[in-house]
Amino acid sequence: MKIAIYGYGNLGKGVECAVHNACDAELVGVFTRRDPEAVKTLTGAAVYKADDLPKFKGKIDVVIICGGSATDLPKMTPALAKDFCVVDSFDTHAKIPQHFENVDEAAKAAGTVAVISAGWDPGMFSINRLYASAILPNGNDYTFWGRGVSQGHSDAIRRIEGVVDARQYTVPVEEALAKVRSGENPTLTTRQKHTRECFVVAEEGADLEEIRRKIVEMPNYFADYDTTVTFVTLEELRKNHSALPHGGRVIRTGKTGLNNENSHCIEYSLQLDSNPEFTASVLLACARAADKLCARGESGCKTMFDIAPADLSDLSGAELRKTML
Amino acid sequence: MKIAIYGYGNLGKGVECAVHNACDAELVGVFTRRDPEAVKTLTGAAVYKADDLPKFKGKIDVVIICGGSATDLPKMTPALAKDFCVVDSFDTHAKIPQHFENVDEAAKAAGTVAVISAGWDPGMFSINRLYASAILPNGNDYTFWGRGVSQGHSDAIRRIEGVVDARQYTVPVEEALAKVRSGENPTLTTRQKHTRECFVVAEEGADLEEIRRKIVEMPNYFADYDTTVTFVTLEELRKNHSALPHGGRVIRTGKTGLNNENSHCIEYSLQLDSNPEFTASVLLACARAADKLCARGESGCKTMFDIAPADLSDLSGAELRKTML
Repeated sequence: MKIAIYGYGNLGKGVECAVHNACDAELVGVFTRRDPEAVKTLTGAAVYKADDLPKFKGKIDVVIICGGSATDLPKMTPALAKDFCVVDSFDTHAKIPQHFENVDEAAKAAGTVAVISAGWDPGMFSINRLYASAILPNGNDYTFWGRGVSQGHSDAIRRIEGVVDARQYTVPVEEALAKVRSGENPTLTTRQKHTRECFVVAEEGADLEEIRRKIVEMPNYFADYDTTVTFVTLEELRKNHSALPHGGRVIRTGKTGLNNENSHCIEYSLQLDSNPEFTASVLLACARAADKLCARGESGCKTMFDIAPADLSDLSGAELRKTML
Repeated sequence: MKIAIYGYGNLGKGVECAVHNACDAELVGVFTRRDPEAVKTLTGAAVYKADDLPKFKGKIDVVIICGGSATDLPKMTPALAKDFCVVDSFDTHAKIPQHFENVDEAAKAAGTVAVISAGWDPGMFSINRLYASAILPNGNDYTFWGRGVSQGHSDAIRRIEGVVDARQYTVPVEEALAKVRSGENPTLTTRQKHTRECFVVAEEGADLEEIRRKIVEMPNYFADYDTTVTFVTLEELRKNHSALPHGGRVIRTGKTGLNNENSHCIEYSLQLDSNPEFTASVLLACARAADKLCARGESGCKTMFDIAPADLSDLSGAELRKTML
């Protein structure tokens, strides 16, 4: 399977590592909007101009698009699906239906397969919400994130005047987790589910109390949460908070029996040292599925909901039944 | 979706409850090898002779076969797949490839869809082994069962002379779980992973020490485990050990990064008040998938590996993308 990486940030580097460690994939190259001369890849993979990608038509099986969901992917994915099978990690939940329609139209017209919104949420967490609700229709599901770094929230803090750098951790509330697992189907507010921990480097002489106030009162990002702010030095931030761990869990509790007398709890959890590398690993498995689906003559936009688990694996159906069923 | 239940033990009763609680399914009837007059269903569903099932051809969408894996299913599933879409919970892991071949031949010839080995292990646990290994190829997975009742082990104790009744619980070793989650990829012996707790009712005057010895030394079932035996009265057994709880977890830890510098842990866990009712709920979701696949013109034997998650749900693709992705 010949893979191209389109966009080379943390996610693109993660895909490069995943391809490097896979038995059935090889990397054709990295395609970037920056000057290719200025980009040095981790594995020494070739770097090309993004605009040169169409020249590789027929030489690439799947393009893994590693752009941002806000402005990149809504344009890139439908455009690239006209020439290639593609995979993206579009994660703006509310805009997925529209993105799906746009990509589906392009892919169907071109006879390509495009897998969108792959990763862990959306992605593996979504699949687990689906499986659990199909099995236990009489129940509720809950998604908790963390403990992990939210890059969006870290960026929001950095935009405050007087802030040099910052890292924000999303932390699930243990008490809420216990209530959910008990099967009592609690109604939980935003504040009851997660807390937010901020580690902030301030400029010398900055008004720390003012920065703290601006963070904890920030609408959408922090106002609805119990937020703690800890000021650290730049050295401390680099030493203790430079990684990008994340994770979380999807829990569904539900009832069965003639009179709903039996309770069940399904829990799927992830604990990730590197959010982008794990996401990249899911993207590569989805690239494998896109390649298989395309080879079977399918086309159009797919999500992980539409992909049979076996299509993510490099093992044959017979091998899977023998070793994993 | 019109469902028939073939075989009416604990699993058949579980399917009856699941259909009763589902929005999109109705029960045509229960088919039994016993005298139908002697079988009283939980919901008042009609009971027919097993031999009368062929008369219902065209009036049933999917037959859920609730027989045993040892002798029933190897015969029943290929035979019934000649007339109906079917689902079974065949769970003799080593014999799945042969069962698959037999059922596939029958279903392909008849143009029906047969889903085999559905449930939680095989079933949901298998799917989770597959997803996790496709995402983290450089890793190891571990399956733990319990705390829960093993009916096979309970039966083995009951066959010992002087035993009136017994219940056996399989219990995962917490220390082993912690080692696995830490990512150190431990090699664990059978004894290190699970313990076995037996609650036994003995005949009056029976040699309790002799019964205990026969249990803990029983090859295959107990000899490789640390086993505890507690003698209880029949009243205590009925009062405290009459339910059929079970569960367990599939854990995969794996590495990513250029030099495998990042660790990840994926864990899927189930905690079930009623093993047969949860298994039945999975079977009903698979019946929905069999019905959809057949309507799309597919045929042959499938496992949960071959079923896209969306096909287990009664929601449309657009609804799923909007509400669960």
